[in-house]
Amino acid sequence: MNILFGDKAFLRLRDSLFPAFKEHSLDVAGDGELEQKLPWADVLVIRPMNITKSLLQHGTNLKMVQQWGAGVEGLNIQDCTDLGIYACNIPSRGTGNGEGVAEMAILHMMLLGRRYHRSREKLLEGKVFTPPGTVLWGKKACVIGLGNLGHCLVERLKGLGMTVAGVNRTYRDEFFQWGVDTFHLLTEIEKAVTGCRFVIVALALTPETRHTIGESFFQAMDRDAFFINVARGDIVEREAFDKAIQNQWIAGAGLDVFWNEPPDIADPILHHPLITTTPHVGGVTDASFQGAVDFIVENIKRLSDGREPCSCLNVQDINRRKTL
Amino acid sequence: MNILFGDKAFLRLRDSLFPAFKEHSLDVAGDGELEQKLPWADVLVIRPMNITKSLLQHGTNLKMVQQWGAGVEGLNIQDCTDLGIYACNIPSRGTGNGEGVAEMAILHMMLLGRRYHRSREKLLEGKVFTPPGTVLWGKKACVIGLGNLGHCLVERLKGLGMTVAGVNRTYRDEFFQWGVDTFHLLTEIEKAVTGCRFVIVALALTPETRHTIGESFFQAMDRDAFFINVARGDIVEREAFDKAIQNQWIAGAGLDVFWNEPPDIADPILHHPLITTTPHVGGVTDASFQGAVDFIVENIKRLSDGREPCSCLNVQDINRRKTL
Repeated sequence: MNILFGDKAFLRLRDSLFPAFKEHSLDVAGDGELEQKLPWADVLVIRPMNITKSLLQHGTNLKMVQQWGAGVEGLNIQDCTDLGIYACNIPSRGTGNGEGVAEMAILHMMLLGRRYHRSREKLLEGKVFTPPGTVLWGKKACVIGLGNLGHCLVERLKGLGMTVAGVNRTYRDEFFQWGVDTFHLLTEIEKAVTGCRFVIVALALTPETRHTIGESFFQAMDRDAFFINVARGDIVEREAFDKAIQNQWIAGAGLDVFWNEPPDIADPILHHPLITTTPHVGGVTDASFQGAVDFIVENIKRLSDGREPCSCLNVQDINRRKTL
Repeated sequence: MNILFGDKAFLRLRDSLFPAFKEHSLDVAGDGELEQKLPWADVLVIRPMNITKSLLQHGTNLKMVQQWGAGVEGLNIQDCTDLGIYACNIPSRGTGNGEGVAEMAILHMMLLGRRYHRSREKLLEGKVFTPPGTVLWGKKACVIGLGNLGHCLVERLKGLGMTVAGVNRTYRDEFFQWGVDTFHLLTEIEKAVTGCRFVIVALALTPETRHTIGESFFQAMDRDAFFINVARGDIVEREAFDKAIQNQWIAGAGLDVFWNEPPDIADPILHHPLITTTPHVGGVTDASFQGAVDFIVENIKRLSDGREPCSCLNVQDINRRKTL
């Protein structure tokens, strides 16, 4: 099949990436080349990027758009359906993505709980056995969003001996099998966070989840609690976040994601002593790279064998369309 | 009972510590006051500090020396036995100590695997989605020392989806119940570390374990593996460690403990890009403080009730001595 990688960033990965696709014809679209190269492609592989319907319409042979990752906020699924194109992402759990992002959340929880930056200052002042820290063991964590990432997080937090309050838009029995101790619907999120020392956002960004976390949420959090976002910046209202830090409604925050990416290097959140930050690398790991390659190779094999692709977000709509 | 806290450092904790012992008479020995105050004490509570036999002999009423913590390297157990004094420590697992130290090891594993300091530099250069990191999930870790701390570590690493090679001086069946995947005796430690991406020292320091980790050990480690020490500095030969870093026999190291504490602030290990350091705070946490208080209160209660104290390192020798 003809596989088009839709961003020049894939060129950097060519040595480790291309050999896995050696049965296929490959091309990479540089800046502004996508429209011109799209008619050739059977499969378009995209990074987080905006794909308009008018662009997609150039894909006259296109059978599948495959997101490199779990988040598809730049792709309009309905557009794909209208054009009879499968829209697929990579499921977060089992491919290294959810596992890596969950570990990043835990890293921020530990950086904050152990006051890592303060502890480095103490060490360089010639002191040991200080500052005292907060362990995760025995504490209550709130995981907001019980999708694949939330699942990865719950398993790990239970393994660290925490109590877990789970929050999700809908209820499923399996949450308790994962180890969730108490459950709240997203509509009663403010009840869920009370008594939690760590609150972690693991929601996918959709028009419905945008700005889920606002001022009343931060006011409902315990004053000694830490807020961690490893999902997407826009799930949180920036102004409310700034207020929460400024007024110390919360004890601190750990952010792997931002409202603008990359954030302005002068943005005070990158320099605040109560905030730990990392450059959206939760899912940028050895495991998720290999997991993504393996997943996409297999999904293209399914497509060329005439089977339905996996983790397809519009497979039912496409099937319905085919039978019309 | 008369409880003597053997170091002025306990004074800093008095507000949170003393109320728990309100049924007893309390005193704290400042610098040089221990000898003079010891005849009054039924119980001596000590921090990591050297207690000589000639000092102990002033404890004419002394029934128990209680270490605040797990490590008793400053106390000669035989001296205590000779004088008919129970020597007790606080067991590491279940009291918050082992749990906190195990979490500190995981923090260092993540700091190293995610290249945390490099990632902060990238973010402040205005970059995101870089540097790529190494997840713990699916990797093999070697835990050296399967006491209480090792037990805490094994459970947590399994919860993070790692394979665990365990190393201990002696074999016990329960190691496999904890989740250890493969076992090696301490005498074949160099076989155990091959193929492990993370190697964590969790041994107690004794005359036998001093300098267990030397040059041949580091040479046996994989070149892309990380070495973490949360136990005691002197388990490792300093010169061998420096060579391992200098020659990049290993990919990096995480140290919560040092050869001298506090380390010299000019010591290059505090400033090396391949080494992450924290000021011996693995066990300095909210949980271990409360765990220690609860344990000591209960142990003193047992003593005053005429029962044997818990976690007593010479209880059999004392009993034998009593029946002679």
